[in-house]
Amino acid sequence: MISDRIKKLSPYKTETTRAKVRLSSNELPLLLPEDVRKRIGEEVSKIPLNRYPDPKADELREIIAQHLGVKKENLVLGNGSDELIYYLSIAVGEFDRGVFYPIPTFPMYEISARLLGRSRVEVALSEDKDIDLEASIRSIRRFSPILAFISYPNNPTANCFSREKIEKIRQEGLFTVIDEAYFHFSKKTFLKDASSREDTVVLRTLSKIGMAGLRIGILVAKEDIAHEINKMRLPFNITYPSQVIARLMLTEFYHLVENCVSMVIRERERILVELSKIEGIEPYPSDANFILFRSHIDADTLHKELLRRGVLVRNVSHLPTLENCLRVSVGLPEENDAFLEALEDAIRSFI
Amino acid sequence: MISDRIKKLSPYKTETTRAKVRLSSNELPLLLPEDVRKRIGEEVSKIPLNRYPDPKADELREIIAQHLGVKKENLVLGNGSDELIYYLSIAVGEFDRGVFYPIPTFPMYEISARLLGRSRVEVALSEDKDIDLEASIRSIRRFSPILAFISYPNNPTANCFSREKIEKIRQEGLFTVIDEAYFHFSKKTFLKDASSREDTVVLRTLSKIGMAGLRIGILVAKEDIAHEINKMRLPFNITYPSQVIARLMLTEFYHLVENCVSMVIRERERILVELSKIEGIEPYPSDANFILFRSHIDADTLHKELLRRGVLVRNVSHLPTLENCLRVSVGLPEENDAFLEALEDAIRSFI
Repeated sequence: MISDRIKKLSPYKTETTRAKVRLSSNELPLLLPEDVRKRIGEEVSKIPLNRYPDPKADELREIIAQHLGVKKENLVLGNGSDELIYYLSIAVGEFDRGVFYPIPTFPMYEISARLLGRSRVEVALSEDKDIDLEASIRSIRRFSPILAFISYPNNPTANCFSREKIEKIRQEGLFTVIDEAYFHFSKKTFLKDASSREDTVVLRTLSKIGMAGLRIGILVAKEDIAHEINKMRLPFNITYPSQVIARLMLTEFYHLVENCVSMVIRERERILVELSKIEGIEPYPSDANFILFRSHIDADTLHKELLRRGVLVRNVSHLPTLENCLRVSVGLPEENDAFLEALEDAIRSFI
Repeated sequence: MISDRIKKLSPYKTETTRAKVRLSSNELPLLLPEDVRKRIGEEVSKIPLNRYPDPKADELREIIAQHLGVKKENLVLGNGSDELIYYLSIAVGEFDRGVFYPIPTFPMYEISARLLGRSRVEVALSEDKDIDLEASIRSIRRFSPILAFISYPNNPTANCFSREKIEKIRQEGLFTVIDEAYFHFSKKTFLKDASSREDTVVLRTLSKIGMAGLRIGILVAKEDIAHEINKMRLPFNITYPSQVIARLMLTEFYHLVENCVSMVIRERERILVELSKIEGIEPYPSDANFILFRSHIDADTLHKELLRRGVLVRNVSHLPTLENCLRVSVGLPEENDAFLEALEDAIRSFI
């Protein structure tokens, strides 16, 4: 009796391949010092695990609100942004109205639309990896979607789309979700729109700033919108340990996060320079903590050759417009060196 | 652009009132010894929080499968059972087919149906708090729901419905979800049906056995059903700390859970005897870790009077068929004593 919506679904593909150097999941290479880890353990040991966590996660929301310069009433927390994408896909418009997003992009937009049987209005990016505005407007007018997901910067292309193009799409009457999972590496945001407009919300996450294990996504919206989404939220969706640890990380230990983010941005620039020196490799500009690059040799082969040398990157070459492209996360300097060496070595072996 | 499905929704009401003795959320009164807490803290301190957790939670699923005597391929883990109720409500049948459940019952069945715009076929329990089979069959034949939620034992009435009546409802062609959140206190289960039939799944949870803070729900189903629900699952829905702590609690420290469950069952029987001695109080039989009782005085007033004496219970008197009923969780012996004393004192003050 399971619906065909589910039976026909291709699930999100997680990457669990083991490798010495894992640069495949866009995690922050945040290594916490021994005393910080100890402190986290001590705080967790005090939790009454038999009790339900604060359903509103009020203390954590207050801290996040201060970080963002909004009120806690503007926030909905999710079990990762993924959960918030599900909620928005359920909440915005009726299911007979479709969902728009440029492709290639983060797969959860497609998955949540498919789950609910909503039609998908997918428009391929233009050659420069920006939104193809003309084709998008044409499709939107033809199929009348009501909800748009914009990954900003876009995963896996690493660039921020033109702001003007996003605004033009929104003007077509779409409730627009700006997914700023990688904001800390782009510094570009629609936060003002999200806290003032009825048709725009922003997604943030702690996953890309060193807390992927805690599963905390953040939706920023006008108070009345946030109120509605909070109503549908699983009542205890943020675990007790995650609330406690995230609070510590965003207060006492936030300087560690900031230092690591700065290091990653510096390393990203260094890798971009190094990649552009390698013959047969063309990196794309990046506003994120990962880099998309095209290879002159077959990407499936190159992916395997890198893995054979202990380096795991993400093979995105089967996605539309990304022929022979791979995506590499920025890691620690020594991990990035290992990646660059493995890449040069692999390329050399093909000449 | 938020749908009326959401705007009209009354959200799940969480109980955050502070009280000296909290017997309102059916939590297990599991107090972990200092050395156990320390051990949990140490294990959590080793977690690389910047990494995504195991998307399949394979080690934890393996341990839970052993506890249940099934294979890990029979399991889907959720962020509490709540998440699994959402998934089943999305996955089973099309949205124009309704959802059946007896009332009063756990509110998430109604909420998830409303979210998706599915019609609700609600049938009030009979006088003895069992399923009203005749009325249920009549409604099912008239409205053709495809999905049934059966809370077993039922929250908030505390009893297990007649197995035969549940089977008769299932025979009408409904995909039947048996929510055994309180299994450890009833020892009655549909587990065999869940692992062998296409039309039956069982929900379990760690929330009622001392781990509400971790948010781990368990769906048991035939492999092919579990496979489909796993496809729609948020890819990283069980946090890293929750996976680590639950593994410890279900292995090394499981004897603490078992001892506490036995204590609660003994205390439940004691409270039932004591309640039946109090004039003006009529307790119902219980297969759970909570007790429903009817009062001869107004339940809103009694609830307030108990709170004034430091004891918080759940006021369920506004639910259908539960006029003047309150629900009390079984706590530690001294908490139960405090409840009984407060109740006697409150009742006495009204005579």
